[in-house]
Amino acid sequence: MSLYSETEGRPKPLPYADEKGVLSADDFVVSTLGECTYETTRPRFAFVDDKQRVLLQSHYTPTKPIDTSLAFEVAGQRERMFFDPHNTIVGIVTCGGLCPGLNDVVRALTYASLNYNVKKVLGYRYGYHGLSKDGHPPVKLESRQVNTIHDLGGTVLGSSRGPIPAAEMVETLKRDKINILFTIGGDGTQRGAQMLFEEITRQKLPIAVVGIPKTIDNDILYISRTFGFDTAVEQARVAISCAHAEAQSADNGIGLVKLMGRDSGFIAAKATLASGDVNICLIPEEPFTLPSLMANIENRLVHRGHCVIVVAEGAGVDILKEFNSAKTDSSGNTSYGDIGMFLKSEITSYFKKTKLGITIKYIDPSYTIRSIKPTSADAAFCEELGNKAVDSAMCGKTGCIVGYWGESFTLVPMKLIARGRKKVDVKGHMWNTVKQMTWTMQPIGGKDEKSKEKEKEKDEGSELSSSSTCSSSSTPSSAATHPPTPL
Amino acid sequence: MSLYSETEGRPKPLPYADEKGVLSADDFVVSTLGECTYETTRPRFAFVDDKQRVLLQSHYTPTKPIDTSLAFEVAGQRERMFFDPHNTIVGIVTCGGLCPGLNDVVRALTYASLNYNVKKVLGYRYGYHGLSKDGHPPVKLESRQVNTIHDLGGTVLGSSRGPIPAAEMVETLKRDKINILFTIGGDGTQRGAQMLFEEITRQKLPIAVVGIPKTIDNDILYISRTFGFDTAVEQARVAISCAHAEAQSADNGIGLVKLMGRDSGFIAAKATLASGDVNICLIPEEPFTLPSLMANIENRLVHRGHCVIVVAEGAGVDILKEFNSAKTDSSGNTSYGDIGMFLKSEITSYFKKTKLGITIKYIDPSYTIRSIKPTSADAAFCEELGNKAVDSAMCGKTGCIVGYWGESFTLVPMKLIARGRKKVDVKGHMWNTVKQMTWTMQPIGGKDEKSKEKEKEKDEGSELSSSSTCSSSSTPSSAATHPPTPL
Amino acid sequence: MSLYSETEGRPKPLPYADEKGVLSADDFVVSTLGECTYETTRPRFAFVDDKQRVLLQSHYTPTKPIDTSLAFEVAGQRERMFFDPHNTIVGIVTCGGLCPGLNDVVRALTYASLNYNVKKVLGYRYGYHGLSKDGHPPVKLESRQVNTIHDLGGTVLGSSRGPIPAAEMVETLKRDKINILFTIGGDGTQRGAQMLFEEITRQKLPIAVVGIPKTIDNDILYISRTFGFDTAVEQARVAISCAHAEAQSADNGIGLVKLMGRDSGFIAAKATLASGDVNICLIPEEPFTLPSLMANIENRLVHRGHCVIVVAEGAGVDILKEFNSAKTDSSGNTSYGDIGMFLKSEITSYFKKTKLGITIKYIDPSYTIRSIKPTSADAAFCEELGNKAVDSAMCGKTGCIVGYWGESFTLVPMKLIARGRKKVDVKGHMWNTVKQMTWTMQPIGGKDEKSKEKEKEKDEGSELSSSSTCSSSSTPSSAATHPPTPL
Amino acid sequence: MSLYSETEGRPKPLPYADEKGVLSADDFVVSTLGECTYETTRPRFAFVDDKQRVLLQSHYTPTKPIDTSLAFEVAGQRERMFFDPHNTIVGIVTCGGLCPGLNDVVRALTYASLNYNVKKVLGYRYGYHGLSKDGHPPVKLESRQVNTIHDLGGTVLGSSRGPIPAAEMVETLKRDKINILFTIGGDGTQRGAQMLFEEITRQKLPIAVVGIPKTIDNDILYISRTFGFDTAVEQARVAISCAHAEAQSADNGIGLVKLMGRDSGFIAAKATLASGDVNICLIPEEPFTLPSLMANIENRLVHRGHCVIVVAEGAGVDILKEFNSAKTDSSGNTSYGDIGMFLKSEITSYFKKTKLGITIKYIDPSYTIRSIKPTSADAAFCEELGNKAVDSAMCGKTGCIVGYWGESFTLVPMKLIARGRKKVDVKGHMWNTVKQMTWTMQPIGGKDEKSKEKEKEKDEGSELSSSSTCSSSSTPSSAATHPPTPL
Repeated sequence: MSLYSETEGRPKPLPYADEKGVLSADDFVVSTLGECTYETTRPRFAFVDDKQRVLLQSHYTPTKPIDTSLAFEVAGQRERMFFDPHNTIVGIVTCGGLCPGLNDVVRALTYASLNYNVKKVLGYRYGYHGLSKDGHPPVKLESRQVNTIHDLGGTVLGSSRGPIPAAEMVETLKRDKINILFTIGGDGTQRGAQMLFEEITRQKLPIAVVGIPKTIDNDILYISRTFGFDTAVEQARVAISCAHAEAQSADNGIGLVKLMGRDSGFIAAKATLASGDVNICLIPEEPFTLPSLMANIENRLVHRGHCVIVVAEGAGVDILKEFNSAKTDSSGNTSYGDIGMFLKSEITSYFKKTKLGITIKYIDPSYTIRSIKPTSADAAFCEELGNKAVDSAMCGKTGCIVGYWGESFTLVPMKLIARGRKKVDVKGHMWNTVKQMTWTMQPIGGKDEKSKEKEKEKDEGSELSSSSTCSSSSTPSSAATHPPTPL
Repeated sequence: MSLYSETEGRPKPLPYADEKGVLSADDFVVSTLGECTYETTRPRFAFVDDKQRVLLQSHYTPTKPIDTSLAFEVAGQRERMFFDPHNTIVGIVTCGGLCPGLNDVVRALTYASLNYNVKKVLGYRYGYHGLSKDGHPPVKLESRQVNTIHDLGGTVLGSSRGPIPAAEMVETLKRDKINILFTIGGDGTQRGAQMLFEEITRQKLPIAVVGIPKTIDNDILYISRTFGFDTAVEQARVAISCAHAEAQSADNGIGLVKLMGRDSGFIAAKATLASGDVNICLIPEEPFTLPSLMANIENRLVHRGHCVIVVAEGAGVDILKEFNSAKTDSSGNTSYGDIGMFLKSEITSYFKKTKLGITIKYIDPSYTIRSIKPTSADAAFCEELGNKAVDSAMCGKTGCIVGYWGESFTLVPMKLIARGRKKVDVKGHMWNTVKQMTWTMQPIGGKDEKSKEKEKEKDEGSELSSSSTCSSSSTPSSAATHPPTPL
Repeated sequence: MSLYSETEGRPKPLPYADEKGVLSADDFVVSTLGECTYETTRPRFAFVDDKQRVLLQSHYTPTKPIDTSLAFEVAGQRERMFFDPHNTIVGIVTCGGLCPGLNDVVRALTYASLNYNVKKVLGYRYGYHGLSKDGHPPVKLESRQVNTIHDLGGTVLGSSRGPIPAAEMVETLKRDKINILFTIGGDGTQRGAQMLFEEITRQKLPIAVVGIPKTIDNDILYISRTFGFDTAVEQARVAISCAHAEAQSADNGIGLVKLMGRDSGFIAAKATLASGDVNICLIPEEPFTLPSLMANIENRLVHRGHCVIVVAEGAGVDILKEFNSAKTDSSGNTSYGDIGMFLKSEITSYFKKTKLGITIKYIDPSYTIRSIKPTSADAAFCEELGNKAVDSAMCGKTGCIVGYWGESFTLVPMKLIARGRKKVDVKGHMWNTVKQMTWTMQPIGGKDEKSKEKEKEKDEGSELSSSSTCSSSSTPSSAATHPPTPL
Repeated sequence: MSLYSETEGRPKPLPYADEKGVLSADDFVVSTLGECTYETTRPRFAFVDDKQRVLLQSHYTPTKPIDTSLAFEVAGQRERMFFDPHNTIVGIVTCGGLCPGLNDVVRALTYASLNYNVKKVLGYRYGYHGLSKDGHPPVKLESRQVNTIHDLGGTVLGSSRGPIPAAEMVETLKRDKINILFTIGGDGTQRGAQMLFEEITRQKLPIAVVGIPKTIDNDILYISRTFGFDTAVEQARVAISCAHAEAQSADNGIGLVKLMGRDSGFIAAKATLASGDVNICLIPEEPFTLPSLMANIENRLVHRGHCVIVVAEGAGVDILKEFNSAKTDSSGNTSYGDIGMFLKSEITSYFKKTKLGITIKYIDPSYTIRSIKPTSADAAFCEELGNKAVDSAMCGKTGCIVGYWGESFTLVPMKLIARGRKKVDVKGHMWNTVKQMTWTMQPIGGKDEKSKEKEKEKDEGSELSSSSTCSSSSTPSSAATHPPTPL
């Protein structure tokens, strides 16, 4: 069972624990390179008090006081800096898959650094590979290079996957006299950045490593929002809208949309809320069975004549795995690498046996939700992220990433986010709304009563700090048979 | 000086005060119609514990403990309801100016109500006028009426401005046997709803009045986010992008965009962050002088050859008022009703006297930012708002609106938001970034050192809970002369 | 070799011939039900002279005079009508795959009919199936039903594929007392409409059958433009833009986009022109070989570091067929139903053997280019199409469809378009530009010199009337080795 | 009365005449610099036969044969060139107001020139001013400079208005050794280009001047389509859609949208067709009176409760002029520079006197319809325009612009388009549809019977070649009183 709520990723209170165990104040301490001795060289209009904190927990019930020791540092400009900008060289690297806003972050980092009057900004090419000994040479970033890049999807620096040994990357940083490295990337990237930070620490180098978290899936722990997610949902809505048109225009039409989300269903769930036209939403966090899915679809078709289904790529992995191994075990017909194509095939087979003559249209927007230009909300967010990252790095903060929590920009130790992955809270308010507005209505978790009993026991003594108290009474049987008001 | 921070609208801690004085726990108490005796009839997957609260304050410094008595109730489904759905009639009314998402909220309220199996949902026509004795008759809302309205801007119910006497509206509610009325509208509307609530209370009627806050400007107190704002910013970015193209394509080209925001500059500020191409951003919260503005524009033109200016409609009202009264006093040439046209004229005059041959293009997107279909983020938000509103009203919550705070949906007493208006915190992190990324750089507040000294005194003993400690050191003189890194 | 030029589908002059042989004036004669005796009941501001014609051929060279006997009737309002509107019942049916603008056409047909004060408008459900004896009953269309449907993709009437016997459909028309039937659909649909028209003629019924041609691929013969194509290209550009971002953001990144176009490459070609970022464009009309394709990709990667490829779904069918049959013949590994997935696999294999470490991203926008709301250009076009169709049908025109030729709305006998299918003219100006702006540069037609010689002979004595005289000198060898100026 | 039809700008047949008199074959002759001696250096796949022509007239009636002597040369690549590319320097200049696609044309011109292997491409800055002796220096254009500019609105070269003496510009061309100059601009620009061409001819210089016509209004004579118009209509539709939402959401709501079109109403008319939600469309070509306008609006409000009005900026100039001069004559209240604001004021006044309490919202999208990125249709069109322009210039064509006629790219002598301005044909099919689908219904031309009689006389002996025979019977009186089927 997931311990974290949907948009917030909040741990359980008293004692606050996640998958790796109980959290303590130490887990929130951000490393610094040393004392801040230089007065800020950036035009300044507001400062962050270095002692200010943002609470991990903002929800409470009277019987459960809040533990204020669990709180994030605040990202932003301080009165004094660790680095002397005139001798400071900044490096930027973008890693992993594309995400809307990458160029916006690169642009914001560049402008904010230049705004401090740093000596130079270098952009490394094609991810960590640009920090390897045989990588492409970095490019010098100035106004001219980044001026219009926020109108483009992708990353002008290029990206790649895969780690490079920390020691090798440190050599490159030393070669280029880098003082601050910004690592824009997902959890893999930030694990690499953490190793880099450790190697730098080991070598006692005055180099700050500050990450900007990037995940199209918005599933980084202890960070409520990451850039690009908003745009991905906007694009996903377009695909769903098309699937809806297809479904509605056929007699017993089914529109099936596969969306990104290997480990979490945030895109699928949010796009379902945004669309208003989805009837069934399947996510990795909530298992389902094929029979119950088919029953739900059939129920919907009988009552409404069409059905729109959204499936996150990581949903139903167990079913898919089982199917594939069964195939392989026997004689070896097609196996499926993909839940979307698999469901399309299963639904088609199922309805061949019924009297309903269905028409199914499968849409996979694939990369189009991630390589597009960002929405305004994402673009503005990237602008602030980039500024906060530079502000924080100039003060010598290191081994941390710039997060967002409780509507504030925070600093989060890299090792804190490595404790797990954020999941949609299937007992939280967002998922509750998704299920109520759709015909998804799986028996909770697709599990039998017994396993639910066990779950309840596990839950005792702790409670979600989010809007959702655990629903001790299970879904009433009526919910499985009576359809909600249809769309 | 503003007491509230930008996206958060947080009051100062210890004692927490706003313009109307010190806040107490009582200010957060939400009225209820009575005991909840009916088991919920909606399919349920998660419940809210009625005792759960969301902290007003999520930021702290070690010396300033958090006052947990100041906290919001949580909006959402409870295990038990006050109303018996089968005898419950729901009314919906949309009031005031348009806002992207109105139809989405109407749709979500309707579906969520039907999901509870209520007896009937009625939509009142053209705002509170539809609740007057000679209003158009209400329309019955069912699936067919609201099914596709989320693809349309505006409100299918119609809207209007202006109050109707509470007693008269109550008569209409009684005539139509309404049990729950949802009032979708801005602060004026919610003041009307508060009076309605008071009249209902006086008459001891079991009618719940629950508001859904609507303001394109996102300036409702104690609510960090309202629907439609995200869309407005998206549309504003389009206008700015055009102004940028116009400015850049002329030698010493100036693009001037006027945006909504009579009392607050949230749209202007956020659109500036989102655009990345704005050079000067003027908002009501930060006064400016014409000479300093002209100097900034000239500075920008000399260095970069073009300049993009965004002005909120409420910025520079004092300057405009002074100009108009001077005009009227003397002989009577044109007076300006509009800061945009006024600035266009002033800039044109000013640069006629310089050697720079400018070209100025003025763009006023006006209503196009508010009558458009909502973004995905707004649409999803509306879906949740509507669901939380129905969930809360079914439990007999009344005299309150559904808010959003610390990334949670809250219930806010109507009288709490009537205490003032949310403003951009000119010492907060968002405005800080806006100023740093632009050439706006007004001397702080356009005020002299003396007034700033006084301000500092006023600030003592209190502190913003947001990311910004008051900047005691004023803007260094260098900032006024050295341009920031240009766009 | 194709006889028709790209946007025009013009036949060769003197004698004008297409695949079915020489055209004569008779082929352009539109059937009518009888004399027009009623004065038009529609507000009128302009009339079409029934004798007016639009030339088939608008290009000429001095030695080749124009044959004015080959010309289209003009669609539009006449002074007198065949039908008495007050006794006229109109039927509308939408068939086949979705196309942007279907609802716009339905709306325009409905409003234009009501504008004539016809007795009733009926919408048949789910294509020709709605005209079968066990189809869903038709819906009455009035203002309220169609008022907002132009904001939605798909078709509110529903659609389906597959023919229904003409006699059975005629029974339904008689049952419902239909006087005019509008058949919105592609060539299959219009073949069905032709049979319906013939059956009606056989039974001597005064029922007009007028088609509105629908093809996302824009490949109907003797019609230069069909609705929805413009929108499809707009959506295709989005997918290409994403593929470009993906390609550019990887070291030796390849973006591969599959677009609709089973028999013709109009979408692929036009989207390539619109995008400006495509490097290789593959269409059914111009064969290619895998080795030359791989060479082109490699060439591009070596020179530019990334490559964007667009492939129409019908391109390379021979290669695919050959591959699949080879697979089946031998032991039976994967066979491919789809040129896109096949190319992805082939490219991946090919570059595994080279030193270039490529990254390939495959995007299939699939139905999203056809189920979206239409562009303004398409919406305006649909409005005119619908009006012209009603105007023409009221005059008793029948057995014809409303076409577009030389920037005029025309009437085209259904049997004329059944003579073949429009193709991209691989020697025309549009394809010329596509090839010049990309690295496509296949040796012409992928054919050897010998077959080209034969082709030249075939061409003698005739000439394309479009902008392109046959290139007698073949592509110079240099073109195959020297890349054009790259994007 | 207008002599030209709407999308086609076709002159009257037999004898073909426009405002300047009868046309002859000589008017279509394109100047050339001399014999084409160089074999084309561009990869070639198709050639244009230099003797090929596109008919001016494609419509005919049996009694009126077509005059094939009136025909355009075809733009495009010839087998042989006048210029030796290796010694050819190309200049590009963009003049006048912005238009979507300017950067696309610049990009296409640059790539096509480089594709010919020309020596150099220079971009002149800020219009003809860049060709003056004290203009900014030109920039060298290479792949890097233009690679991504098609994603941006505006013109990267900058633009300006106003002429520079031809002799002075020729000096600059000689200074920079320019062989080919591309002038992208409207009729003013092309008049300047014509003078430049004449001066070059006088000096016997081997410099080609080829124009690319640019007009957001699409009103250049003998050219059916210009780039940017499609995009402008798309943007205009957004504004109209917003006005519709505003109108519909108020009781007796009126949405008033002003659109570009000083001399012609193409944008207004096409956007009305595209929108489907406009009720009254006012254009310069068809005069109206305030009383009839008010009657139409009132009629619409009474029947439908809301009204959407689109007004081209040049509509009603006489009314505006009369009003303003009356104001000035008397004491001097506000005069209006703008039909939009004037109508808003007049409508407000009018309805104050009626019982209908109206709400009017005025939207002026202004520059946003012209400084936006082009639609796909425009982008593809720009790509072809740029290629055809370079192809033609390389062959020594000069003193001409690249036009579009009958779906072909043509070469049009600059002096031909200077004969007048294209107008919406108020008796043509497009305007017919606009009036039928709206409540516009002005008595034709707002003129009395007498003036219509005179008009009829003028019309005799000639006929529009477009779809519309002159309606000799005037609008029936019924049309003025019976509303058309409402939207």
